[in-house]
Amino acid sequence: MRTIKLDEITKVLENIDPIATIEAGFVAYSEGKAVVPPVGELIFDNPPGDVHIKYGCLVGDDYYVVKIASGFYDNPQLNLPTSNGLNLLFNQKSGELLSILLDEGYLTDLRTALAGAIAAKYLAPTKIRQIGIVGTGIQARLQLNWLKKVTDCREVTVWGRSEEKLGLYKRDMIAKGFSVETTLNTEEVADKCNLIVTTTPASTPLLKSTDIRPGTHITAVGSDTPNKQELDAAILHRADLVVADSIAQCLERGECVHARKDELTAGKNLVELGRVIAGSAKGRTSDEQITVADLTGVAVQDIQISKAVYEACRPEVSKMSN
Amino acid sequence: MRTIKLDEITKVLENIDPIATIEAGFVAYSEGKAVVPPVGELIFDNPPGDVHIKYGCLVGDDYYVVKIASGFYDNPQLNLPTSNGLNLLFNQKSGELLSILLDEGYLTDLRTALAGAIAAKYLAPTKIRQIGIVGTGIQARLQLNWLKKVTDCREVTVWGRSEEKLGLYKRDMIAKGFSVETTLNTEEVADKCNLIVTTTPASTPLLKSTDIRPGTHITAVGSDTPNKQELDAAILHRADLVVADSIAQCLERGECVHARKDELTAGKNLVELGRVIAGSAKGRTSDEQITVADLTGVAVQDIQISKAVYEACRPEVSKMSN
Repeated sequence: MRTIKLDEITKVLENIDPIATIEAGFVAYSEGKAVVPPVGELIFDNPPGDVHIKYGCLVGDDYYVVKIASGFYDNPQLNLPTSNGLNLLFNQKSGELLSILLDEGYLTDLRTALAGAIAAKYLAPTKIRQIGIVGTGIQARLQLNWLKKVTDCREVTVWGRSEEKLGLYKRDMIAKGFSVETTLNTEEVADKCNLIVTTTPASTPLLKSTDIRPGTHITAVGSDTPNKQELDAAILHRADLVVADSIAQCLERGECVHARKDELTAGKNLVELGRVIAGSAKGRTSDEQITVADLTGVAVQDIQISKAVYEACRPEVSKMSN
Repeated sequence: MRTIKLDEITKVLENIDPIATIEAGFVAYSEGKAVVPPVGELIFDNPPGDVHIKYGCLVGDDYYVVKIASGFYDNPQLNLPTSNGLNLLFNQKSGELLSILLDEGYLTDLRTALAGAIAAKYLAPTKIRQIGIVGTGIQARLQLNWLKKVTDCREVTVWGRSEEKLGLYKRDMIAKGFSVETTLNTEEVADKCNLIVTTTPASTPLLKSTDIRPGTHITAVGSDTPNKQELDAAILHRADLVVADSIAQCLERGECVHARKDELTAGKNLVELGRVIAGSAKGRTSDEQITVADLTGVAVQDIQISKAVYEACRPEVSKMSN
């Protein structure tokens, strides 16, 4: 059994094409080649925190993976990171524990950011005027940074509730090569940006349908529980296309929960990301469309990233464990 | 974060009263003081294996626990143990991973055996004539050995499908101070024994109602999925009392699944083990009654045993991790 720590994980990630890895996972999932049971969940009130257990495997693969990730929203007051977690990789033929990836939540953050980049790759309008980021946390940083792989746009407007956090975000993302404006008003993001990523644990909508301009793509990654919501449900109804990482899961948690299900599914504008990637469903078909990606995080992402890290680590880890 | 390996776990268990620990867990569970979501599950066909994720916490406690345990039934052909697993202990206030208990499935085996001893303590008839064990595996050994804590009876009849395995079982349990007869016929177990423990992953009943004599207590620990079944459902209907470790869980998996639910629940002879332990529900009230304990394994057992091991290890582990 190999324990792989965060520093080793970040090192071997340099040798992996993580976007391709995650895309393959979404395709397998949408083709029914992944076993992904419903998410296990613990929700705490005091202090507020949620724990998600995502697990499963590709059918007939060598592995199954169990990922445990948490968000404890008062942690910054204790000088602890909000998100935390680990991935466990097992042998699908014997149940043996092969590896503990002590990624401290990083692989969850990463695979979430990768899904955002993939959504933008397939759904953003041809010309991205400005990127809008809603939120100033880790995911707000990672999402923007990974968008570099799929767009040349480096103009950003970021929304946050705190001037201080906006200032830190601006400083950090300028260092990453972006030009960043800050705002306390989400309308400004909706007005200026035609690729928007929402990254907060909000439980009341931050973006209103009336503010969204035609030709906008919105990726919502913040909501992963039934009670979190970043987008006014009217946005989903108005959208020409709603793409879910998992339709089944998004109808239970995420943004789709808050929309009228019948309308979403009957209108046939709700499709799965893996089908768009595989080309078996259409993505955006004109630059005037409004598209939404509802990303709640599917275990197949955890499976794929864990496998990739484990396999990339094997030679090095073998040496180290001697 | 402290990784605790099996040898350390078995060592510190000597300083713990594990029966009291598990009893307290069952009581908390039945009093609604535990959060125990439905079991997560992966089932594999080729080779046959099942993985259970049991997780939860006591309300307001310092910890939450996630336990991953597997049974891969062809593993002995690969010279690997059938069962495997680990327990993870987290800080309920921050999500921090506090400890990985690399118990290789031992704590699951142990807490299952402890539940069997507890069931016998509260439900077995006053005078135990002979102990019947159905099965010859690890659980068949552990159950019998832990019964020493709750009965003086050392006379045993064991059933198995293989003479070879019966021989090994007999040898091992004689070494533990028992007098052991073997049989290939479960009727013989039912005839001679008034405390019977079934420990197999059978999917067709091994014990028939017509063979069970009045004054028998049966503890069924083998079934933890909807399709496994060791007892003829007629035994549950005939029993004066059916005690479930978790009524909710036993109606989804275990022996109760195969009985007529309405009849079980309406007859009010289905009660929860924690209530019997706490004295808020009656256990056996006469030596002529037939009683059944359906034990499917509840996360509260994993929580309790993991907490106890972690807390008992703390000083030693601190030293070792320097």
